[in-house]
Amino acid sequence: MNYTLKHVPEREIKPRGKGITMVMDKGLSINEVENFLSVAGDHTDIVKLGWATSFVTPNLAEKLKIYRQAGIPVYFGGTLFEAFIVRGQFEDYQRVLDKFEMEHAEVSDGSITIDHELKCEFIRRLAKQVTVISEVGSKDEAKIIPPYKWIQLMKAELEAGSWKVIAEARESGNVGLYRGTGEPRMGLIEEILTQIPQEKIIWEAPQKAQQVWFVKLLGSNVNLGNIAPAEVIPLETVRLGLRGDTFNHFLNGLDLDIKL
Amino acid sequence: MNYTLKHVPEREIKPRGKGITMVMDKGLSINEVENFLSVAGDHTDIVKLGWATSFVTPNLAEKLKIYRQAGIPVYFGGTLFEAFIVRGQFEDYQRVLDKFEMEHAEVSDGSITIDHELKCEFIRRLAKQVTVISEVGSKDEAKIIPPYKWIQLMKAELEAGSWKVIAEARESGNVGLYRGTGEPRMGLIEEILTQIPQEKIIWEAPQKAQQVWFVKLLGSNVNLGNIAPAEVIPLETVRLGLRGDTFNHFLNGLDLDIKL
Amino acid sequence: MNYTLKHVPEREIKPRGKGITMVMDKGLSINEVENFLSVAGDHTDIVKLGWATSFVTPNLAEKLKIYRQAGIPVYFGGTLFEAFIVRGQFEDYQRVLDKFEMEHAEVSDGSITIDHELKCEFIRRLAKQVTVISEVGSKDEAKIIPPYKWIQLMKAELEAGSWKVIAEARESGNVGLYRGTGEPRMGLIEEILTQIPQEKIIWEAPQKAQQVWFVKLLGSNVNLGNIAPAEVIPLETVRLGLRGDTFNHFLNGLDLDIKL
Repeated sequence: MNYTLKHVPEREIKPRGKGITMVMDKGLSINEVENFLSVAGDHTDIVKLGWATSFVTPNLAEKLKIYRQAGIPVYFGGTLFEAFIVRGQFEDYQRVLDKFEMEHAEVSDGSITIDHELKCEFIRRLAKQVTVISEVGSKDEAKIIPPYKWIQLMKAELEAGSWKVIAEARESGNVGLYRGTGEPRMGLIEEILTQIPQEKIIWEAPQKAQQVWFVKLLGSNVNLGNIAPAEVIPLETVRLGLRGDTFNHFLNGLDLDIKL
Repeated sequence: MNYTLKHVPEREIKPRGKGITMVMDKGLSINEVENFLSVAGDHTDIVKLGWATSFVTPNLAEKLKIYRQAGIPVYFGGTLFEAFIVRGQFEDYQRVLDKFEMEHAEVSDGSITIDHELKCEFIRRLAKQVTVISEVGSKDEAKIIPPYKWIQLMKAELEAGSWKVIAEARESGNVGLYRGTGEPRMGLIEEILTQIPQEKIIWEAPQKAQQVWFVKLLGSNVNLGNIAPAEVIPLETVRLGLRGDTFNHFLNGLDLDIKL
Repeated sequence: MNYTLKHVPEREIKPRGKGITMVMDKGLSINEVENFLSVAGDHTDIVKLGWATSFVTPNLAEKLKIYRQAGIPVYFGGTLFEAFIVRGQFEDYQRVLDKFEMEHAEVSDGSITIDHELKCEFIRRLAKQVTVISEVGSKDEAKIIPPYKWIQLMKAELEAGSWKVIAEARESGNVGLYRGTGEPRMGLIEEILTQIPQEKIIWEAPQKAQQVWFVKLLGSNVNLGNIAPAEVIPLETVRLGLRGDTFNHFLNGLDLDIKL
């Protein structure tokens, strides 16, 4: 830190089991990755190459190398997994993971319909090869999953071998965990938390108001995902109570006095 | 491509007659242009220096050189053309095009009222000097042009020598082709397409939902414009059915089977 | 300028007493600062390191050096001042300003409640050390300050030694000067201007429509703040009547004629 402030909430340090910031890279150039890491690398725990952007970006191998050198794990977005399996190319996907020396992979069903037992079998298979992150929730705003079902799915996926489960919101933050307006489905989130340990969940929260909402609910060390690269520093200040939005939240109960 | 997926829609290759992505540069630095081209150059067909931003950016000649070296045509936004002609400086504008060795120019009337025959005469004159792109539609949300008139204007401008016509939406995507909410004027667009070949039209579509809407209506190789530099890779995945939004659209009718 | 256009409004030149563009840097990397300055440095008068982002960015000293070399003053966002004084660490804050050789500082009460006489005393103290900019208005959308009170606060702070006063809007532009929708509180702004010289006020105006609104009300040389780095060039075109939004505003009354 550049200077010392009293009463700043304590943050987990890397490698963090909780308080994770998962960043979405949706097509950064090599220099942009370097810029991003130079300022926000310490506050970034894991990077997702959004959906199937890795199919069209020409800089894939070099980009993976830079993230690797910075000690930051990377994985391909779940839509890429779905694009392979819907075409009957699961083994090709496994070869792609090997070819690019990936150590993490996402298993999701946001764009396809798949029997949940089969999804869990994919998790089990991939868990032998890499660390699996699995995602629950549909990208289709019309598909509303009731809370008990979210819990059932999350439990089964963690048992099948997922390291963590991601709660879906898309890049835009208006499906899954959120209403079309971006407002969090509070009842859903609270019910999930009665059954699943919060360290096991990464909440996709691309909008600032959503990040603030989760930090107020679960504290500085909540796991948040789909953070845009330029928003990692702002999010870190939200976690520390150093932005207007959470400024007073973290001061409550302290015996403070403003004086010259 | 970094790996092989079956059943991915075929994209035109450069130089593309259709399936064009027109990008708006509204003041990138030299390094930012280089970053952008390093990752999205292959998916960018033509670049517009938005409205009259070229008047205030200090890096104009160098920027043009970099785009030229990458084989990507560049043109000044139509508002610059309008700024010159409204001041009676058309010949000055022609000299500016020569001075900067421009090979394309836009003719538009988004901010001014001009007799259409005179607009077509400007197109004819400039077409002797450069490749002309002309724009139809007002930047003023109160000026609603009925569909038959859009068609009449587009036809006359193509006959006057425009290489392609651009359908107006602004940087924000809430006028011209779209309602104030950003929703496409479907009836307008469908009626235009009964009379004007789609290869001749570049649809301004700055918002993701608008891009998705056009790809679903007209396929992977629709011409789209006013794309932000950082959105070229995401758009390319939309064109290929590799983002949630168009994922199922391109799989319909294929006999696919998810299996381990 | 890259070419000559007649009838372009005259802009103040640096160092500007009015027509100031205050930019918000919310965590740029060193290269991003260099990119930004290379294209927009001439149009940037002062930079704010947003709220307490300086606490978490690892590049602080180097960043300050680059801005200094470019001749652009920098200051820490007011939330950082508030974070220090709410913890009883005002003297620590003064030492931080010295350590980083800051020449400007912001005094604000956007996130805290503080007796106004005490706020003015902070201004008086800091004005002995640096050039003080003070901010009026709450970040809390529920706290509506009536116009006469804005005027009273601004007057007292200018008398206490503020170089300029900033009218609050946040990074998002939906509090203070604006309604929740982002629409300017016109009556408030007009009443303030009956009592406070406009050169003494920097209006936070992060949204394009807000910038356009102020340029139309107060002309090219209005002081505007919380401008995103990538929006400095676009704003400059708005100030000059070279973007659709203000194109006709600056041509009114001129005797112009469109001709070939």
